[in-house]
Amino acid sequence: MTNQFPARIKKSAENHHSRIVLALDIKGKEPKPLLEKTLHILKQTGVNLAAVKLNYHLLLPLDLFNSVATIINEAHNQGLQAIADLKINDISSTNTVTASYLWDAGFDSLIANPFVGLEEGLGPVITAAHEENRGIILLVYMSHKGAEDGYGLKVQSNTHTAGRFMEMHELFLDRALSWGCDGIVVGATRPETMKKVSSKVQGKLLVFSPGVGAQGGSPRPTIQSGADFLIVGRSILDATSPAQAAEDIRRATWRPF
Amino acid sequence: MTNQFPARIKKSAENHHSRIVLALDIKGKEPKPLLEKTLHILKQTGVNLAAVKLNYHLLLPLDLFNSVATIINEAHNQGLQAIADLKINDISSTNTVTASYLWDAGFDSLIANPFVGLEEGLGPVITAAHEENRGIILLVYMSHKGAEDGYGLKVQSNTHTAGRFMEMHELFLDRALSWGCDGIVVGATRPETMKKVSSKVQGKLLVFSPGVGAQGGSPRPTIQSGADFLIVGRSILDATSPAQAAEDIRRATWRPF
Repeated sequence: MTNQFPARIKKSAENHHSRIVLALDIKGKEPKPLLEKTLHILKQTGVNLAAVKLNYHLLLPLDLFNSVATIINEAHNQGLQAIADLKINDISSTNTVTASYLWDAGFDSLIANPFVGLEEGLGPVITAAHEENRGIILLVYMSHKGAEDGYGLKVQSNTHTAGRFMEMHELFLDRALSWGCDGIVVGATRPETMKKVSSKVQGKLLVFSPGVGAQGGSPRPTIQSGADFLIVGRSILDATSPAQAAEDIRRATWRPF
Repeated sequence: MTNQFPARIKKSAENHHSRIVLALDIKGKEPKPLLEKTLHILKQTGVNLAAVKLNYHLLLPLDLFNSVATIINEAHNQGLQAIADLKINDISSTNTVTASYLWDAGFDSLIANPFVGLEEGLGPVITAAHEENRGIILLVYMSHKGAEDGYGLKVQSNTHTAGRFMEMHELFLDRALSWGCDGIVVGATRPETMKKVSSKVQGKLLVFSPGVGAQGGSPRPTIQSGADFLIVGRSILDATSPAQAAEDIRRATWRPF
């Protein structure tokens, strides 16, 4: 079966004229008010978004098959895609169980770390995701400072480069392409990498870029450098008016595919 | 505050004469029977264990502050430590929220991937964990085949080795030591690495070793090569008698600290 996640998220983007993935990094230890706050934000901002991204902020305290499924359902009702961001990097038997739970809750795509490798690692979960018409997004270069200690390392790969040294993020990009994934993550704090990557992958992988706002990246230049989607959290969530903040970023960064 | 996790897990081990960490990788989409099955296994096997390890199998479908907290409470009642295995590798703002949820649920320690780096990565969560008297365990070399595509890569680290090339797992071991962590994970499928690592870290880091049984590693030689704890899942969970299987592995591998 052809995986339609890339087509679905592009359609969501076109419908709302938006390149924004809202990171629902909302804090709260009481499940009920946390769910209500999340749904409230989603209702305020949904029309300005293409997708939402959920991580441990919601996936740990909230019940997956009730509260999280309710959030995903609301996102779908608003014409948005839902991405699970657990940066999975486990053995395949655990990864496939994890993914099957996420698909059952309604997620359209998940983010994984290609560091864990293909065989008995991400291989089976990529295959299973595509059979279920869901997407896989791989980390290529994260946005925080310490990312250089991993994604910026010089490495020698026996399997991919016949002994040549390259930077880890180049190796990860090769993996995303050769493993048949759907998207990659490249931090907005690394504009040079973004330019190189986006020229290489155009049309083959969607580029998601976190790190604008609180972490220092700028929305408009990031899209101009070739990112397909901005992952935005605090700039919208912490604004006096999340709806207005989302609309402002949407207007400043929208361009058709 | 001094972090007592290493002392606590050693005491649990001495009390039960056990080097076993049971990986509670139990499948089930219905929360209630999943919780009941987990508690049943725990009651059958607890006396033969030193600790339990929970990952997405339970942390996604079960409610963290009720069902998961109940499992941890039962483990503590049996004198066992509880380890959260999400292999976290996110930015610090997400890692610290994740960890605070895990500590609130009662976990004693968590497993993280040092690939994500220290600054704005794992640094703040290591500090916060130790202030809460909880432990941090870093991945050094996983047990599955594809682990070679990450942990086995030759790398050049500017920060740690002044340009020298080394294998990724050596770099990760350096990080576990210099970042002041409490334990490391080294797969039982890599006996040569285990010997090198354990001779280097003796007394400074506890060595946890997954991959015995289903993945091909042998319990007794793994402990003889220097692992402090075996992480065992399927060999116990899938046995006709989990209690008997746990007792057999415990007897075959126990040695005092």
